[in-house]
Amino acid sequence: MYNIKVVHSKREDDTMKLKRSERLIDMTQRLLDNPHTLISLTTFTTLYQSAKSSISEDIAIIKKTFEKQGVGIIRTVPGAAGGVIFVPKIKREQALAAAEKLKEQMNDASRLLPGGYIYLSDLLAKPNVLHDLGKMIASAYEDKKIDAVMTVATKGVPIAQTVANYLNVPFVIVRRDSKITEGSTVSINYVSGSSSRVEKMELSKRTLPSGSNVLIVDDFLKAGGTINGMRSLIQEFDSTTAGAVVFCESGVSNHNVSDYSSIIKITEIDTESQKIKAVLGNFFDKHEFL
Amino acid sequence: MYNIKVVHSKREDDTMKLKRSERLIDMTQRLLDNPHTLISLTTFTTLYQSAKSSISEDIAIIKKTFEKQGVGIIRTVPGAAGGVIFVPKIKREQALAAAEKLKEQMNDASRLLPGGYIYLSDLLAKPNVLHDLGKMIASAYEDKKIDAVMTVATKGVPIAQTVANYLNVPFVIVRRDSKITEGSTVSINYVSGSSSRVEKMELSKRTLPSGSNVLIVDDFLKAGGTINGMRSLIQEFDSTTAGAVVFCESGVSNHNVSDYSSIIKITEIDTESQKIKAVLGNFFDKHEFL
Repeated sequence: MYNIKVVHSKREDDTMKLKRSERLIDMTQRLLDNPHTLISLTTFTTLYQSAKSSISEDIAIIKKTFEKQGVGIIRTVPGAAGGVIFVPKIKREQALAAAEKLKEQMNDASRLLPGGYIYLSDLLAKPNVLHDLGKMIASAYEDKKIDAVMTVATKGVPIAQTVANYLNVPFVIVRRDSKITEGSTVSINYVSGSSSRVEKMELSKRTLPSGSNVLIVDDFLKAGGTINGMRSLIQEFDSTTAGAVVFCESGVSNHNVSDYSSIIKITEIDTESQKIKAVLGNFFDKHEFL
Repeated sequence: MYNIKVVHSKREDDTMKLKRSERLIDMTQRLLDNPHTLISLTTFTTLYQSAKSSISEDIAIIKKTFEKQGVGIIRTVPGAAGGVIFVPKIKREQALAAAEKLKEQMNDASRLLPGGYIYLSDLLAKPNVLHDLGKMIASAYEDKKIDAVMTVATKGVPIAQTVANYLNVPFVIVRRDSKITEGSTVSINYVSGSSSRVEKMELSKRTLPSGSNVLIVDDFLKAGGTINGMRSLIQEFDSTTAGAVVFCESGVSNHNVSDYSSIIKITEIDTESQKIKAVLGNFFDKHEFL
């Protein structure tokens, strides 16, 4: 009697016969946890000891619900090596609503810092804000075969990480100062747009394989020197730039960068009268949504 | 005719009558997306136009499935202001399996860098690794009423962000160099354990409210100076340290830090014979799991 019980409970752990309701919950969780990952139908039929037809029905329900709720799409890859892939996508109205909320938070004169800089660290440290940003940026680039997300230390890191998370690719961090813990690096010189000084940025050699298609993200675009620097660095790694997205661009300084998009744009900064005005950036004109 | 259709579709967007299967998928997604957040039953009954009893049944099924699969627990808060809270938790065997995989990847002599440092950037840039680390650390501290996760720039940031994500609290980044974009800062001097030099670290004044209960995380513990520095900084902000967790500790150098836990411990480094040996750290003896 005892032995049978033990065997039974072990079997439940490895492969389990679940009711449809439990199966739907478990499949939903596995798909959400593994975006941009091909999961074969056999994985599910083995896991739940269910027929392929039942699993296909389950997937159809999940697919429909995800699309309706703006969670994402489920792509089906046919054939023996096929399966399903969950791709996080956001609806235009969801993205706009999230951006409007961010815009309101940016319209706050206490964010003004000397030199026309803006305090953003509070926003970029909040899980909810990062979820929204990550999802909208990853959604816009989901079909661009991105291999890595690149940013520059330190403030771009949270955005890069959340985008990389939704795209399920690694992120690479470019540094302005060399650290021993990075091993050997490739460095380039670039012109900092705002100060017209020549500066250096570097990336660990092991971090980015050649031939990568790289999405650049950053927190703030002032004059564009950093983004142009990252483009050059990507070339040094024999890789291509898929695009560049910044959380916030300053519309009051001149850019020398083209082909980027911004979620928020600052159109007015007046440190004397303590005024700041934010509008939505060009991100929403440039990209497709669910 | 047209008008009625439009009204109907709008109504579906705001509040929708869903089948149980779709409701389960949607609730699962909402709970997973909002950890450590109280969601009232009324939110669900309004959203799905369903009876409280049906929603309670749905939650019971999700709760059971989440516990069985090691996704987390669902706490029920009774009363008029009550509802449900999803708390990410990991099973001991899941955490151990993830840590064993990391340990294997650490046992790789090509990670050795001059000075007894170890290259970790590849691991800490992978979404899957960060998921595992974030979930196990957040799981261990889920009942400690954490208000913020603290780390030092740059390499600790990905770990802090993933832990903060699972705990649904902000993360704060301490810096060794001051940046204009941080506004005014509080700085302390600390003794770097490995070099016995006096160094400086600082944190933006706006970042951490006084009275916060702070969890410290970092990528690598060599001599412990950085962690002790962060503890002092937390005191400067009239806050308390809830604990300190590092991804990897070096067991070959002497620590002057107590009361921390590590996921991985390096017990042997030999740069001459190119040898590195990693074992599991004390994290798994110190904490409770699902």
